[in-house]
Amino acid sequence: MARIVMKFGGTSVADLERIANAAARVKREVEAGAQVAVVVSAMAGVTNQLVGYVDQTSRIYDAREYDAIVASGEQVTAGLMALRLQEMGVAARSWLGWQIPIRTNEVHGKARIEEIGTEALVPRLETGEVAIVAGFQGVSPRGRIATLGRGGSDTTAVALAAALEAERCDIYTDVDGVYTTDPRIVAKARKLERISHEEMLEMASLGAKVLQTRSVELAMNHGVRLQVLSSFEDKPGTLVVDEDEIVEQQIVSGIAYSRDEAKVTLVKVADKPGVAASVFGPLSDAAVNVDMIVQSVSSDGKRTDMTFTVAKSDLERAVATLEKNRDGIEYEDLISDADVVKISVIGVGMRSHAGVAQTMFRTLAEKGINIQVISTSEIKISTLVAEEYTELALRALHTAYGLDAA
Amino acid sequence: MARIVMKFGGTSVADLERIANAAARVKREVEAGAQVAVVVSAMAGVTNQLVGYVDQTSRIYDAREYDAIVASGEQVTAGLMALRLQEMGVAARSWLGWQIPIRTNEVHGKARIEEIGTEALVPRLETGEVAIVAGFQGVSPRGRIATLGRGGSDTTAVALAAALEAERCDIYTDVDGVYTTDPRIVAKARKLERISHEEMLEMASLGAKVLQTRSVELAMNHGVRLQVLSSFEDKPGTLVVDEDEIVEQQIVSGIAYSRDEAKVTLVKVADKPGVAASVFGPLSDAAVNVDMIVQSVSSDGKRTDMTFTVAKSDLERAVATLEKNRDGIEYEDLISDADVVKISVIGVGMRSHAGVAQTMFRTLAEKGINIQVISTSEIKISTLVAEEYTELALRALHTAYGLDAA
Repeated sequence: MARIVMKFGGTSVADLERIANAAARVKREVEAGAQVAVVVSAMAGVTNQLVGYVDQTSRIYDAREYDAIVASGEQVTAGLMALRLQEMGVAARSWLGWQIPIRTNEVHGKARIEEIGTEALVPRLETGEVAIVAGFQGVSPRGRIATLGRGGSDTTAVALAAALEAERCDIYTDVDGVYTTDPRIVAKARKLERISHEEMLEMASLGAKVLQTRSVELAMNHGVRLQVLSSFEDKPGTLVVDEDEIVEQQIVSGIAYSRDEAKVTLVKVADKPGVAASVFGPLSDAAVNVDMIVQSVSSDGKRTDMTFTVAKSDLERAVATLEKNRDGIEYEDLISDADVVKISVIGVGMRSHAGVAQTMFRTLAEKGINIQVISTSEIKISTLVAEEYTELALRALHTAYGLDAA
Repeated sequence: MARIVMKFGGTSVADLERIANAAARVKREVEAGAQVAVVVSAMAGVTNQLVGYVDQTSRIYDAREYDAIVASGEQVTAGLMALRLQEMGVAARSWLGWQIPIRTNEVHGKARIEEIGTEALVPRLETGEVAIVAGFQGVSPRGRIATLGRGGSDTTAVALAAALEAERCDIYTDVDGVYTTDPRIVAKARKLERISHEEMLEMASLGAKVLQTRSVELAMNHGVRLQVLSSFEDKPGTLVVDEDEIVEQQIVSGIAYSRDEAKVTLVKVADKPGVAASVFGPLSDAAVNVDMIVQSVSSDGKRTDMTFTVAKSDLERAVATLEKNRDGIEYEDLISDADVVKISVIGVGMRSHAGVAQTMFRTLAEKGINIQVISTSEIKISTLVAEEYTELALRALHTAYGLDAA
């Protein structure tokens, strides 16, 4: 008998009516003969409210208490979903992290799942009882509630699917699948029937907000077949599967963009060994994540320009850190620019096809868009351009790579 | 070093400001050198909201899911209180029922505490760390969250005080102590400095809403010294102690009243063996609790009238049950009256003083108040009168027993 995990995010369980709607979907799978474990998020808004309470109560951030407080949101949804299913005649029981148990490490607030016990769940699933699991949380080695960080319910779902050896992990959300690019910007964006784990991982890291990065990584490592689909519409979503399950591979599967980028340029940095360390060491100490980095070729062998990107929210801290370390780094000027966007084309087909980067550069050039920074990996090419070109660049690239819907 | 338990009810932790106010009281006890365990209720309104969700979700009442849902309220307060104390420089940690553990029986929704483990708490209390315990909940033998019923946080506090062998259990609430009677009705009501467990138990059962009955019972059985005091004012409350700790015992300590009563009279019931069983058996099956019962003396030896009281909320069900069983019971008529009030005088001094009942009957007669039903126990006399006399009767009795404030 097929065993599946279904995950409903905050907007899919935002109120009692939506919980009932989600329960109806669960019932349908049960009636089709599946053994079902359901992972639920907190009702939309609840987690933010709880986090607000925490912020107002203490300037000291105690992650253990934070976890005990915010984990209560999922607990409520799990109980309500179980009750709703019972009301519909489906046997169901709620489960909290410590009851299953979902064992995590000690890193409260951003805990990683280490092990999921299946001894309690499996016999009940086999009797046809639905397990409603509170997402986003587990229990630490010291018996404390530990949360997995924002979006952690996706991770709970995938880890549970791996532990239960589920045939599929369905992620119900407020979009109906993964698109070639953001359909709000590119009208001709197409929903993908399938996408590989690797591509989905890049999409998630590069700004597509459909799935949490960590959950995709976990699905890839454990070979969990994910499906992203809408809780509000009744049609198939996008399957995230192993690369070899995709027969007709596109060269480029999707185009992602992220406005959460800011560019920093250090003008005329000393071009000598150790300069990169003198720049990025202090930034790392200040917990600033650096993304794309380019260093221009020095014309005189003495001074060079160094450009890199940071998250917009880190820009102020990055600039302050660099100014404080100006003497150690030795640069003439610091220029920062928050009006940039990172546009990335993604596709496993790139590995075996030449010219993918060239198409991107040519297309942007034809539209008069200047590329400020380039960075590439095996299956993606990212460029940084002025933010005002976002829509133009996305549409042009979407057409250039043959992704437009017919 | 003194060890105390402090309990804050829903109105005392209604919002973040009040949680801070409660935390300040905890800090003061810590600074005075006490080891402190704190029991908290849910923020006022939260439990009702959660119960509302449950009611709207399912007509089937699954007490296990109900418990998982409503217990989340206390979890949030416990975490917030711990954070607040940390912010004030006081070491603190929140504890849920399953973490301590507070072991209960399987009766979800109305569970009884069977055992409280102290191995985890005591070493931390001894280091000066404050334990913030989520009230109202424990863990069942099957590892499920079990709640203790409404007002259960009082029970948690008293049971914890007993387990920790605490010197005192302070119940912080929105009144500043136990009064001789309801001060909203009788302006001359006095706050009692001390009251015995037995009297408090009667007061609680008879309508005084200061403490939950079960918690007083538990305090009496384990010799826990309770103090009822205000979280909003800075003055001593009322101590609930063993009878022999009260030196100058009043004959009557207090006068309670309950409007939650309804009277049922069965007219001309057959006066024969087994008739009481034929009346009260079906009521018991219908989960109707019967309180006061009187059976008048039969004039002809064949027929008698039988009067008893039930909770107002049960009246409709009681009448329906009796009408359904009319043939089995054999009565001529059924009269019900919801406009009644039960007034009770309470005092352990009654045991050794005659004439206490006589004072009550005479006082009510002087005011022209007809007594409909009487019931007595070792330390209380209750009378049922028409509801419209509530204020008049309370004031007259308060004066007659010498309870008026100077």
